[in-house]
Amino acid sequence: MTEKIKGIAASNGIAIAKAYKLVQPQLDIEKIAIQNSEQEINRLNTAIQTSSEELEHIKEQARTELGEDKAAIFAAHLLVLRDPELIQPVQDKIKQEQVNAEYALHETASQFIQMFEQMDNEYMKERAADIRDVTKRVVGHLLGVEIPNPSLLTEEVIIVTDDLTPSDTAQLNRKYVKGFTTDIGGRTSHSAIMARSMEIPAVVGTKTVTADIQTGDLLIVDGLDGFVFINPSDEIIHTYHQKLSDYNEKKAIWAALKDQKTVSGDGHVVELAANIGTPEDVRGVLDNGGEGVGLYRTEFLYMGRDQLPTEEEQYTAYKKVLESMGGKPVVVRTLDIGGDKELPYLHLPKEMNPFLGYRAIRLCLEEQDIFRTQLRALLRASTQGNLKIMFPMIATIEEFIQAKSILLEEKSILQSSGIEVSDQIEIGMMVEIPSSAILADQFAKEVDFFSIGTNDLIQYTLAADRMNERVSYLYQPYHPAILRLINMVIEAAHREGKWVGMCGEMAGDQMAIPILLGLGLDEFSMSASSILPARSLIKNLSKAKLESLKGEILSKSTAEEVLEVVKKLINP
Amino acid sequence: MTEKIKGIAASNGIAIAKAYKLVQPQLDIEKIAIQNSEQEINRLNTAIQTSSEELEHIKEQARTELGEDKAAIFAAHLLVLRDPELIQPVQDKIKQEQVNAEYALHETASQFIQMFEQMDNEYMKERAADIRDVTKRVVGHLLGVEIPNPSLLTEEVIIVTDDLTPSDTAQLNRKYVKGFTTDIGGRTSHSAIMARSMEIPAVVGTKTVTADIQTGDLLIVDGLDGFVFINPSDEIIHTYHQKLSDYNEKKAIWAALKDQKTVSGDGHVVELAANIGTPEDVRGVLDNGGEGVGLYRTEFLYMGRDQLPTEEEQYTAYKKVLESMGGKPVVVRTLDIGGDKELPYLHLPKEMNPFLGYRAIRLCLEEQDIFRTQLRALLRASTQGNLKIMFPMIATIEEFIQAKSILLEEKSILQSSGIEVSDQIEIGMMVEIPSSAILADQFAKEVDFFSIGTNDLIQYTLAADRMNERVSYLYQPYHPAILRLINMVIEAAHREGKWVGMCGEMAGDQMAIPILLGLGLDEFSMSASSILPARSLIKNLSKAKLESLKGEILSKSTAEEVLEVVKKLINP
Repeated sequence: MTEKIKGIAASNGIAIAKAYKLVQPQLDIEKIAIQNSEQEINRLNTAIQTSSEELEHIKEQARTELGEDKAAIFAAHLLVLRDPELIQPVQDKIKQEQVNAEYALHETASQFIQMFEQMDNEYMKERAADIRDVTKRVVGHLLGVEIPNPSLLTEEVIIVTDDLTPSDTAQLNRKYVKGFTTDIGGRTSHSAIMARSMEIPAVVGTKTVTADIQTGDLLIVDGLDGFVFINPSDEIIHTYHQKLSDYNEKKAIWAALKDQKTVSGDGHVVELAANIGTPEDVRGVLDNGGEGVGLYRTEFLYMGRDQLPTEEEQYTAYKKVLESMGGKPVVVRTLDIGGDKELPYLHLPKEMNPFLGYRAIRLCLEEQDIFRTQLRALLRASTQGNLKIMFPMIATIEEFIQAKSILLEEKSILQSSGIEVSDQIEIGMMVEIPSSAILADQFAKEVDFFSIGTNDLIQYTLAADRMNERVSYLYQPYHPAILRLINMVIEAAHREGKWVGMCGEMAGDQMAIPILLGLGLDEFSMSASSILPARSLIKNLSKAKLESLKGEILSKSTAEEVLEVVKKLINP
Repeated sequence: MTEKIKGIAASNGIAIAKAYKLVQPQLDIEKIAIQNSEQEINRLNTAIQTSSEELEHIKEQARTELGEDKAAIFAAHLLVLRDPELIQPVQDKIKQEQVNAEYALHETASQFIQMFEQMDNEYMKERAADIRDVTKRVVGHLLGVEIPNPSLLTEEVIIVTDDLTPSDTAQLNRKYVKGFTTDIGGRTSHSAIMARSMEIPAVVGTKTVTADIQTGDLLIVDGLDGFVFINPSDEIIHTYHQKLSDYNEKKAIWAALKDQKTVSGDGHVVELAANIGTPEDVRGVLDNGGEGVGLYRTEFLYMGRDQLPTEEEQYTAYKKVLESMGGKPVVVRTLDIGGDKELPYLHLPKEMNPFLGYRAIRLCLEEQDIFRTQLRALLRASTQGNLKIMFPMIATIEEFIQAKSILLEEKSILQSSGIEVSDQIEIGMMVEIPSSAILADQFAKEVDFFSIGTNDLIQYTLAADRMNERVSYLYQPYHPAILRLINMVIEAAHREGKWVGMCGEMAGDQMAIPILLGLGLDEFSMSASSILPARSLIKNLSKAKLESLKGEILSKSTAEEVLEVVKKLINP
């Protein structure tokens, strides 16, 4: 019987391929007395040799498929494997204590790991993680247990995992990954965002896929409706081929909209932009008919390295994005680090509630060197395109005014040393903290534009961590309180003649788009792959009719009641 | 020269007394080779004997001064000290390894501590803490370093500490504590709340008092304006005796208001109630002229124990509070556990952002046994006084409706088994999550009353953890967004004929009271010691005039601008 698992549809499309389970195996290490220590040391050396060849191979593969920075991870692993300070004591232990290689390696490595982890130094902590990874690989070879090597994929697969971590992602050979399915996570988890940026179907939060699926099982991942089928019957496969071809037809219709403006049925024009993380993402924006970048998350420039990026490195990245967008608007968000995004080299203290802590603009206004470097790089790049700058996590007017005055200060310093800076840069802010939505009328006098960040706005307004499974039922984009805040922001901005965008996940959500259009949102910024479906949807909506429903929607008591109104609208 | 340190005024009044530093000393333990192990074992035994006598003394003192439950802590310490399973191995180690007693004890104890701590069992983890405390005491005696014994205080002192933890508090002989001052913490930290409940002056968040002050220094703690003076000059002492006598005069005026109603200068009546944690706190409420209990935090019934309180234990506590309040209203908040308040025996998983996590009503609606037991105890006690019940952390209408229906279900079960339940119980909710303030018009149709919990409402609305020093500047009660939310709640409630209270710290704040009176707040619930000063203030305010300033205050952009308006009002 075909098994069918329900999950959360996290990235559109349908994939049919074999499963590849990305789950770390349990390695049980026993202490065994041995007779012949020389033979045991040979066993160890062979396992090290095999691991070393494997890592060389992975490293090369990573270099060509994933790039130099991903290859560096494996170069670091190779260094560990060749470090006599680690290997010699293992050999000594085998000889002196007459114990098996697995045990000697595990014991010795554990001591190093513990020592490095206790150091108050992120660099050494990362070395601890390297030793852990490498030891696992060698022990795997000693025990004859296979360690997953997702960078070595050579055929098309669907990745099955509990949760895709950023470090897993770094090791994936994306060319062969046709879909994802995970046990945990929601629409805004790393796995889901990754799937949408790779434009492959994903079903997350299934709770059981890693238990139910074996590597090699044939899978269907239905990222449209949130189902995973395990070893489906021919009938189901047939149905899904049909569904896939319907979907491809739709995609053809969407493709025809690529170079069109976004206009509602009754002639109201809005802008559909994309959220990006790196200059490389621009191609996807243009391929999907994006009219701009509504959110350029600059954190990626700062992550996965051991020091701050220089002004020059940043300038190059910003310039590249602005140039590639060829005059279309690019909204750059200044550094939003902290919260769930850590920068080890900043040595920030651990916080009890990082989402309510020292992050984003709070950190930038304190550590002004970091902030000013970024602003200078942005200002210098501003002549290369249509740059707009926005500050994240603004909670008070004072913060916005201070951030803006630092920006203007850097601008006049640059200009007085003869460097050209655009005079057209709009300066705005994210609205993602309830206080700034509630006080939007006051903020609207200070800003050039707002961009509503619904991911955070929802979690603060409902006091529910969006990463916490136990309270995920409270992460409700359609909660009337959220819609009222969005409405307040849009009304306040329009009264002052300012425009409002949205760059949270909600902006690309087909159920939310009709509401947002009715509330008067000017710019929708989403995953590139959601742009054409959104344009197609908006084409068939009447802005005037949706606007007339505003009062009804905002006076609902619950998210469910709101959804009922929207559903009736879309399928009357 | 007198040193003067600025901090946060956390509890009213002025104290002049000697400093008592409650800081754990650093114990440096070296490994020393010894010659005579018998002599070393004698040193150990003497130190154990001295510690044992000390603990006996502390235990007796605790029994008479602090009560049986506090004495139990030290009884547990004595058990550790007399445990041959711990002591024998230490003696063996001294003999076999010819090492000093400090080292042998420390090594052996560390092993036990590590073992107990690794167990997934809160009881064993507490034993680990006991061993740690006792070892510190014995090592202190071996090294001749004094360990602070705050339960042995015999003269009046001012406690100087980095932060007063609940376990420090348990060991304090409160009779002799005339004031507090701490390095860290704010108005809502444990130290501050404790000081207000003990009605002694406190200055917290000074950053440096433990570094600047030695035990025995003469201190003035000015809890009115937030200053600490170290070894003040005669002139300053004189000034402060004057200030103290002015303050005492004011207190005499306040005392005269004890049995009066709370009426503004222009005849508007409001209710001043108190926040309490235990039935014992009721005396302070009545002594300070409280017109009710606006918040009975029931968590204390569940904390500091290793299992849930029974229905009977709860019934007894609720009955006692209701009876002692003699018909005055008592608003009981159902269990608000989670966040910063953990119950080890519930074995809740660690969360990344506990303030945005699985807590309060979220937990109660899931773990209904716990919730229903509490509700039954409350319902049974309801005939003994004027009970009102409110649910904490309500974010959606569905939660309120579900909680209320569970309450009504338990009520009808009790009634059908012949148990009398009051028919006058009002059922309300805390407004402490932005969504419920924004949607107050819808909630107002469902509730009998609201109680605004500003401590949480402020931290969610500004997305700033109120326990986190680095973002404490964002904890702004006067932020116009907060005042707008409060206004929304009051207007929505009054339109439906419901009343609104406030039980956050803000309700007792002399600068906030005029604003809240102007916004139409009906009930102010605060620390008992703030009630009479608040009544005195309100007597001199004109509700009509404050109401006329509402529009001006709500259209301000910053907390600072709001405060300017209020300051002009109070000191025209």
